[in-house]
Amino acid sequence: MQQKVAVYRKESFNAAHRLNNPLWDEEKNKIVFGKCNNPHYHGHNYDLIVKVIGIPDSQTGFVMDLKELSDIIQNNIVEKFDHRNLNEDCIEFKGLNPTAENIAIVIYNILKEKINPSLDIQVRLYETDRNFVEYPHHI
Amino acid sequence: MQQKVAVYRKESFNAAHRLNNPLWDEEKNKIVFGKCNNPHYHGHNYDLIVKVIGIPDSQTGFVMDLKELSDIIQNNIVEKFDHRNLNEDCIEFKGLNPTAENIAIVIYNILKEKINPSLDIQVRLYETDRNFVEYPHHI
Amino acid sequence: MQQKVAVYRKESFNAAHRLNNPLWDEEKNKIVFGKCNNPHYHGHNYDLIVKVIGIPDSQTGFVMDLKELSDIIQNNIVEKFDHRNLNEDCIEFKGLNPTAENIAIVIYNILKEKINPSLDIQVRLYETDRNFVEYPHHI
Amino acid sequence: MQQKVAVYRKESFNAAHRLNNPLWDEEKNKIVFGKCNNPHYHGHNYDLIVKVIGIPDSQTGFVMDLKELSDIIQNNIVEKFDHRNLNEDCIEFKGLNPTAENIAIVIYNILKEKINPSLDIQVRLYETDRNFVEYPHHI
Amino acid sequence: MQQKVAVYRKESFNAAHRLNNPLWDEEKNKIVFGKCNNPHYHGHNYDLIVKVIGIPDSQTGFVMDLKELSDIIQNNIVEKFDHRNLNEDCIEFKGLNPTAENIAIVIYNILKEKINPSLDIQVRLYETDRNFVEYPHHI
Amino acid sequence: MQQKVAVYRKESFNAAHRLNNPLWDEEKNKIVFGKCNNPHYHGHNYDLIVKVIGIPDSQTGFVMDLKELSDIIQNNIVEKFDHRNLNEDCIEFKGLNPTAENIAIVIYNILKEKINPSLDIQVRLYETDRNFVEYPHHI
Repeated sequence: MQQKVAVYRKESFNAAHRLNNPLWDEEKNKIVFGKCNNPHYHGHNYDLIVKVIGIPDSQTGFVMDLKELSDIIQNNIVEKFDHRNLNEDCIEFKGLNPTAENIAIVIYNILKEKINPSLDIQVRLYETDRNFVEYPHHI
Repeated sequence: MQQKVAVYRKESFNAAHRLNNPLWDEEKNKIVFGKCNNPHYHGHNYDLIVKVIGIPDSQTGFVMDLKELSDIIQNNIVEKFDHRNLNEDCIEFKGLNPTAENIAIVIYNILKEKINPSLDIQVRLYETDRNFVEYPHHI
Repeated sequence: MQQKVAVYRKESFNAAHRLNNPLWDEEKNKIVFGKCNNPHYHGHNYDLIVKVIGIPDSQTGFVMDLKELSDIIQNNIVEKFDHRNLNEDCIEFKGLNPTAENIAIVIYNILKEKINPSLDIQVRLYETDRNFVEYPHHI
Repeated sequence: MQQKVAVYRKESFNAAHRLNNPLWDEEKNKIVFGKCNNPHYHGHNYDLIVKVIGIPDSQTGFVMDLKELSDIIQNNIVEKFDHRNLNEDCIEFKGLNPTAENIAIVIYNILKEKINPSLDIQVRLYETDRNFVEYPHHI
Repeated sequence: MQQKVAVYRKESFNAAHRLNNPLWDEEKNKIVFGKCNNPHYHGHNYDLIVKVIGIPDSQTGFVMDLKELSDIIQNNIVEKFDHRNLNEDCIEFKGLNPTAENIAIVIYNILKEKINPSLDIQVRLYETDRNFVEYPHHI
Repeated sequence: MQQKVAVYRKESFNAAHRLNNPLWDEEKNKIVFGKCNNPHYHGHNYDLIVKVIGIPDSQTGFVMDLKELSDIIQNNIVEKFDHRNLNEDCIEFKGLNPTAENIAIVIYNILKEKINPSLDIQVRLYETDRNFVEYPHHI
């Protein structure tokens, strides 16, 4: 049986955000989220790597055309989040704290709908080059 | 005559900002600054490289102790700008558009006061890995 | 039972290639492969990361000497593909479209023969820093 | 069932080391470990990436606060190994050859004790940007 | 007098090329250019950094809008050279050996015509991350 | 008059070192050099970038063949310092504190003798990706 290949595409977006739990008071938010709780927001250059897993097509040699994958990410993720305030401008984070974990889950759920369901996907999101997350995880 | 050596230290901070000229109306700001004019802000991971130029001390072999340079940058720049909204939280940008050029000039002017005046300094600021600036320039 | 360690070695090569399916006419190739179908070729700096998985030897502390792994990759992959035209100069791609997926599979099959069969291996190939692939995939 | 997220934190330390097996004579050590056997040591900038796997907490949106993870790594790994000679200064390598594989296993075992046992962890250690290891491996 | 600021924009293109001097015979070309003389070409991911030097505009805070600089590079350089064979497809290299030095000079001369003449420019071109050039040089 | 081009080559070496001034007592060395004064040494992956400045040759299009520059650096610098203890193994640092500044000056002086004297050179040395130096400096 032919083994699967993973293909990856990296895109980037820049956004402002703030970590806050509206069910907690100001003091508890300050203690838990520290500087990330700044009410005026701070921001990041997010690097997003999307992994798509499947068998290469015998006619093209592609698991998926990475130009097409790039377009899907651009149209559905970068258009939505680039140069935005995640808390204020993005419906996806009404009632959801925009931690790197939650942003990755949101991105995964959007992309999952747009990519051929026979292909598994995974999302890696860099908030900085020292802090990053991956979803879903399969150890 | 002994030649000078340049020493460099890199530090980082994450901030939100918005490009806007308050003397212009909303439409003109939108045309000139595009997505960077988003009233709810967006953000970046800024990488800052400070260059200090001088003759190495004969006893230490240092132009300047890079641990000391790191502390100066941490205490005077990172403390001030990290996890902040440059437009809202930082007095330095009241009335000054926080373009990468202007942020670099502000940082240079702060650091110039804190570093031995016999040493020349220069500041390089990365807004993203594709957009960056340097001040002052000497071609 | 002792757990396995993965060790990795990165090497690089520069090559020209062209994506084309000889069973299709020129127009279809142009539509499917776009700029990558240029009949005069284009090229890349390929970065190759080879992962080798096993139990460290109790006497050396090595899963595999990375100097030896480097030599195997240099002698069997870099010698063969560096500064070459994959379509014109490399027998491995006669009748096989040199997509990143297919190059990774070819490299895996060559290296699998050269490395101790008790060790599992995996290949990651960067065509650019934004487009890369991994083979075999185990999610 | 909710899927797990992996979160990652990168830290760095600089250390000297020497590869040597005291059960072997000088000549055999020289043959097996080559330049890495230099009796006066050599050194590296080690980059360490720690991966922690779990379900994000519903109140914080964090698998684990990366500031806390950073502190754990700083206090238990960087404090211990940074600007040290692994062979001479570090009890962990008395009788254990400080190969990248063994350093990664030592770091894993230290961190495993310090992190909530309901969370799986994995360690990646870069000795250089071309040589790196990961422990434990699950293909 | 206000000091100048340098602003930088990085773009990328992938191309095939071959180093060859048509005035020399095959043997001499082989000796001088080695693997780079392969008649079937090889290729690179070129990274291009364009530096523009001037006084920030008092109304925008920009030396030059980096979005505009990006567009100029895309339209005049990337469009022309990306996914091309420099020797075969590009009129600029008819009779000019496409060394990194000559590619940088060609790019500089094209961009010089497209950018406000009151601004000085400089071009840095990475052929690989270990080989790169800068033009014009002012030590 | 034709303008000069700068060409750059990057090489790497790994070494142990210790900062210490033998004219000072132990306590003063500890205060001034901190962790870098560890008597058992620590180490770094040094990245070295050598810049060579000149007019491209009309027959080759090269300021200098970067393969030749690479060989000069390998034979005269990497051979000498790689996998060495700078204080113990290298005559160049007998009586000279191996700060990044002094290592860069030593490297410059060695290379200056080996490269065509009509070409200016400059050396940049990374001790880490956050600490680096350049010699000689011309602002």
